[in-house]
Amino acid sequence: MLHAAKHPTPQSGRVKFSSSNSEEANPPEYEAFKGVIPRAPTTRALSVLSVDMLVADNMDAHNTSSYKNTNLIVRRNKEFIIVIRFDQPFNNQQDNVQLEFMIGNSPTENKGTYITVYIGKERRGGRWKGRVIGTQNNDVTVGITPDASCIIGRFNTFVTVMTDVGKQRTPRNPDTDFYVLFNPWDPADVVYMPRDNERQEYVMNDVGIIYNGEFNNIAPRSWNYGQFEEGILDACLLVLDAGKVPLLYRGNAIELVRQGSALMNSQDDDGVLVGNWSGDYSIGTSPTAWTGSPEILLKYAKDGGLPVCFAQCWVYAGVLNTFLRCLGIPTRVITNYSSAHDNTGNLKTDIILEEDGTVNRSRTRDSVWNYHSWNEVYMRRPDLPEKYSGWQVVDSTPQETSDGLYRCGPTSVIAIKEGELSYPFDARFVFAEVNSDVVYYQSDKYGNSNIISVDTTNVGKLIVTKRVNSNDYEDITSTYKYPEGSDQDKQAMQMAERRGVPARDYTKPAETGVAIELQADTIRIGENFKLTLNIKNQTSQKCTLNATITGCVVYYTGVTSSIFKLDSKTASVDPWKTTKVMIDVAASEYMPYRVEQSNLLFVVYGRIQETGTALTTTRVVAPRPPDLTIKVTGAPRVGKDFMVTVSFRNPFNFILNNVQLRLESPGLILTRLKTYAQIPPGGTVQYTDTITPWSPGKKVLIACLDCATVRQVTSQLEIFVQ
Amino acid sequence: MLHAAKHPTPQSGRVKFSSSNSEEANPPEYEAFKGVIPRAPTTRALSVLSVDMLVADNMDAHNTSSYKNTNLIVRRNKEFIIVIRFDQPFNNQQDNVQLEFMIGNSPTENKGTYITVYIGKERRGGRWKGRVIGTQNNDVTVGITPDASCIIGRFNTFVTVMTDVGKQRTPRNPDTDFYVLFNPWDPADVVYMPRDNERQEYVMNDVGIIYNGEFNNIAPRSWNYGQFEEGILDACLLVLDAGKVPLLYRGNAIELVRQGSALMNSQDDDGVLVGNWSGDYSIGTSPTAWTGSPEILLKYAKDGGLPVCFAQCWVYAGVLNTFLRCLGIPTRVITNYSSAHDNTGNLKTDIILEEDGTVNRSRTRDSVWNYHSWNEVYMRRPDLPEKYSGWQVVDSTPQETSDGLYRCGPTSVIAIKEGELSYPFDARFVFAEVNSDVVYYQSDKYGNSNIISVDTTNVGKLIVTKRVNSNDYEDITSTYKYPEGSDQDKQAMQMAERRGVPARDYTKPAETGVAIELQADTIRIGENFKLTLNIKNQTSQKCTLNATITGCVVYYTGVTSSIFKLDSKTASVDPWKTTKVMIDVAASEYMPYRVEQSNLLFVVYGRIQETGTALTTTRVVAPRPPDLTIKVTGAPRVGKDFMVTVSFRNPFNFILNNVQLRLESPGLILTRLKTYAQIPPGGTVQYTDTITPWSPGKKVLIACLDCATVRQVTSQLEIFVQ
Repeated sequence: MLHAAKHPTPQSGRVKFSSSNSEEANPPEYEAFKGVIPRAPTTRALSVLSVDMLVADNMDAHNTSSYKNTNLIVRRNKEFIIVIRFDQPFNNQQDNVQLEFMIGNSPTENKGTYITVYIGKERRGGRWKGRVIGTQNNDVTVGITPDASCIIGRFNTFVTVMTDVGKQRTPRNPDTDFYVLFNPWDPADVVYMPRDNERQEYVMNDVGIIYNGEFNNIAPRSWNYGQFEEGILDACLLVLDAGKVPLLYRGNAIELVRQGSALMNSQDDDGVLVGNWSGDYSIGTSPTAWTGSPEILLKYAKDGGLPVCFAQCWVYAGVLNTFLRCLGIPTRVITNYSSAHDNTGNLKTDIILEEDGTVNRSRTRDSVWNYHSWNEVYMRRPDLPEKYSGWQVVDSTPQETSDGLYRCGPTSVIAIKEGELSYPFDARFVFAEVNSDVVYYQSDKYGNSNIISVDTTNVGKLIVTKRVNSNDYEDITSTYKYPEGSDQDKQAMQMAERRGVPARDYTKPAETGVAIELQADTIRIGENFKLTLNIKNQTSQKCTLNATITGCVVYYTGVTSSIFKLDSKTASVDPWKTTKVMIDVAASEYMPYRVEQSNLLFVVYGRIQETGTALTTTRVVAPRPPDLTIKVTGAPRVGKDFMVTVSFRNPFNFILNNVQLRLESPGLILTRLKTYAQIPPGGTVQYTDTITPWSPGKKVLIACLDCATVRQVTSQLEIFVQ
Repeated sequence: MLHAAKHPTPQSGRVKFSSSNSEEANPPEYEAFKGVIPRAPTTRALSVLSVDMLVADNMDAHNTSSYKNTNLIVRRNKEFIIVIRFDQPFNNQQDNVQLEFMIGNSPTENKGTYITVYIGKERRGGRWKGRVIGTQNNDVTVGITPDASCIIGRFNTFVTVMTDVGKQRTPRNPDTDFYVLFNPWDPADVVYMPRDNERQEYVMNDVGIIYNGEFNNIAPRSWNYGQFEEGILDACLLVLDAGKVPLLYRGNAIELVRQGSALMNSQDDDGVLVGNWSGDYSIGTSPTAWTGSPEILLKYAKDGGLPVCFAQCWVYAGVLNTFLRCLGIPTRVITNYSSAHDNTGNLKTDIILEEDGTVNRSRTRDSVWNYHSWNEVYMRRPDLPEKYSGWQVVDSTPQETSDGLYRCGPTSVIAIKEGELSYPFDARFVFAEVNSDVVYYQSDKYGNSNIISVDTTNVGKLIVTKRVNSNDYEDITSTYKYPEGSDQDKQAMQMAERRGVPARDYTKPAETGVAIELQADTIRIGENFKLTLNIKNQTSQKCTLNATITGCVVYYTGVTSSIFKLDSKTASVDPWKTTKVMIDVAASEYMPYRVEQSNLLFVVYGRIQETGTALTTTRVVAPRPPDLTIKVTGAPRVGKDFMVTVSFRNPFNFILNNVQLRLESPGLILTRLKTYAQIPPGGTVQYTDTITPWSPGKKVLIACLDCATVRQVTSQLEIFVQ
């Protein structure tokens, strides 16, 4: 793009394709046939008075009535019905009328951007099926079925009467524009999802839960996907336009999913969200402050495609989920606990310790994220052998460039499980995210590293997603991996090696017969707590362990920040016994150093006096943030006001500055934002607002409080509107 | 990239990787060991006086002595030898010396950017093997073997003496820098090429032939690859730096080839060449004027990575060939005649004719290039099942974005032949380039298209490359395709459909029993010529054909420009007979309309009176450009001058303006450029220059004359320097 300015690159010897849904063709209202000498028409002049898109009836039938949109929205390969009113009765044997559907500024029949459907005497097959269902007086009822691989987007409708000398077209009328979406209800569509309860969750549910925390302490966070909110569908099409995705490719689910993963992030292109893991979000909204996607997508659309600040993985996953569900592709957000970011593709995550057992931050370049959220989409993969259809991983967090751009997937979950990593896209990277070994090295004084321990079970420890029709999580680890150590697991690893993954050929250190493990309680931010170091002596000799315990604060990406604690303990353990060593951690030790999500990483490095062998173990402690309370006063009823109160008490001994409080509810209210300059220690804030529901049913209120020193303070409340 | 300016995106919670070979680490000359209290060293202080890289001997052994470079150049997995001189004899049992090799600004052991090799008492295995070959007086001869998957690029060398208290490093010395390249001589390297004559051609030959023209009239054009010329290797590494290719990936041939294909073009990134098919090259050099790659790469390097204007496919292929051979990857340029540019991936190239048989330029969006040149690289594909190793297609001409960026491949030629299109990268696109059907549609007055004929044999008609150790071409069509119509061909097509290529399910028009074909003589630009239309009646009825012949000028990309001729003929053909109809084409008809490479496309549209059925055929005529003559005076000898004269006569009746004449010869001279403001009709120019050879052997002089009205005037002369 840069060089377009430096060097004009005119390409008249080349062909170009339209990549904008918002640009239109604007065909003339009258088009004379070539070579026909104008004369009085021999056929009578049929004239179109109106075209009724039957929006409400069609949308009911097409499972699209949830969309807040005044135009018709239909799904592929399912008939929709329109009524054309002429100025006189329509004669099926004599009249010749063409329905023209156009998308983009240069509609072309063989690119699927110009569709014709005939009614009357000229009968022709085309991409889309058309039939006259009935005629009554001057009205003709027409059924139209877009083909199962039709382009997704907003089409313009024209009704054109053919005479002997030319075409008479209805004028451009935005009311007759309609959107075509993917159709998970239809077996012919690649995104077909057979079970209705799954379609309700993965296509129709506009609220969900994204899991964070760490695997011992799974924290749920509600997210407003809001795919049906006013303006969201147009925002999603704008994303494709801004990303210059050719219209031609917009019927291809694989292409759309892959492009979508690139377009959620602003790297490389005018994508939706700017990633930021720095801790400084002062020029935008902090990633932890958002409560859902609509606020983000509407801001992006309002600013004409300017990327929104800021996002981290769950924000990318949440917005991609909205984008895909909005276009009709079944999708869900999943969380992988202890997610390896293995940039060398060699299935090893290397942690380098200093001689004293502390982490060498500059030489440790791989990282294990406490958790990482991505998306799965459900679709057939016609480009691959059949068995790789089903759930596919797609990830829009800019972790690594995939093939030059920041995006990842779609890659078949089944292929990951089997270690069949040759197929597109990015199977190797995802395989490493769930399967890497963590290898601990210790540097000697010459700068050489020696392996001191290997942890083959930590990465990809637990993979979860929101359960269908439930607020609990579902453990889907077994869809990605065979049980650790099973024959099938070994076969999958061997297959991965045959597909070019380097064998993990490092020499594991000899078994010491002594195992160490760190345990921690679930705590809240600001609390003192205890760690328990279990030393299990599985030998017939007494052993004495000298242990160094390093405590450092850590981003959720696994990147370490300040070291706040250095402690050492010595313990003797009798043969075949286990000894517990307690380590006290005071709030005053870690509170001054917290970053972001306040995760604490403890690394224990131990040396057994008797044998000289080294041991390591690590533990992440993710203290829970303080509570946020949502209360409702009165019984919510359609058309009647009710009150919502969100309250928060600052439990800390420091002032919270520039606090943002967000409240939103899909189908009820858009984001409401309240800011507080300061909340003093022990101080309480209460935000009360009035809501008038416009539709009945179950709703979810989602609230989030965020400031630089306390993040991830969220709450949700389910209510039922009568 | 754009948004880096709009929104700073600090990422301290994230890790980053070095992607520059030109940035260096600059380690300190003295590094104290941590935690060691400084005291007098107990070991004697060994000191390094000099490091001799034995450049000439090593380069002979590593097949790199052709490179004009003062630094050592070696290949992976082959030992090179250096001599370290100390201030006193080296004691193998007592001294502890580390050789450190570093690349980039943050060398890290587990990323392969920091390599250590030990000599002396500390013996450790590492990525690279090292051994003491011998000691003599104060000199130690050390053999070092980079591993077979080592990073490609320029390494810095340090020799570091370990004492009890710290490391004493030699100062940074650019003379001890060395380059590591791929090794096609070594079976452990993925680019291993077993036959020596093939290595000589595909790695070592610095001159070659790129074919153009059309398949009836194959035109050779010599190209100076010049991969050994001074500055070319550094320019190739600059391309990788400018493209921000992480050092980490630079040992991976697949990655390097794919990145290389993206980096030859300036789209998306700071690539080498700006594509231009417009006919207006006034702000740069026209694609037809270049005679080789060194001029382009050296300009790119001199301008600090600013893309060079301008290129078309053979220029991209020629420069990519240089880039890959220079880094040690076996590669060749191939030409596919009648290359489909099928942007829908549906194996159909659609040509839309008007009712009168002329081409509808606005609705014909696919195009068949008269020829298209791309590259093949020879390598194992460890990421794929074994049988897909061997030649791989890679294409840097920006035709279509592959996965968001302009590049294509590597994709296995064997996979293309078998229709196994699931594997990366871009197999579908390449398969269509050599296998598409050309479908002719005719529009009726309503704007509807009907298929009038299908040509299944035109696309991918002939695929050629320069033969090993010969200036003839080799037909390699059978490496891409089974014989048309064979069972294996059908199986490959079926496999392609199982891999998601849409079936070619259009109804072919009924056989008419009448075949038409256009023949043309080989002609020169400016000559009158005759076309012969053969009408073969294979029925038992007499037939009468009304034919419309359209002649238009056409870019080599298949995009049509002006129509210069419209003719109609009627002929009667008796049953089972063939009739020839002659069509005269005068130079005065086509000369005023020529574009670019002066190709003429003739489309015949015929209708049989008796049956009303339609027929079409096409023919491209590529008139040959005028001659350019190279003559040598005197017998070329090393160190002695000889004279070269390039002469040209303007055979046209118009003035040639702003004429560029280029002369170059790999290993003899860099590009010499002479410009002529005007050459009048019938006028002659003679350019004479003096050359002093510096090395003996076979050399090729390559000359090219270029101006806006006459392109592709080239010549080559082989000489032997004594």
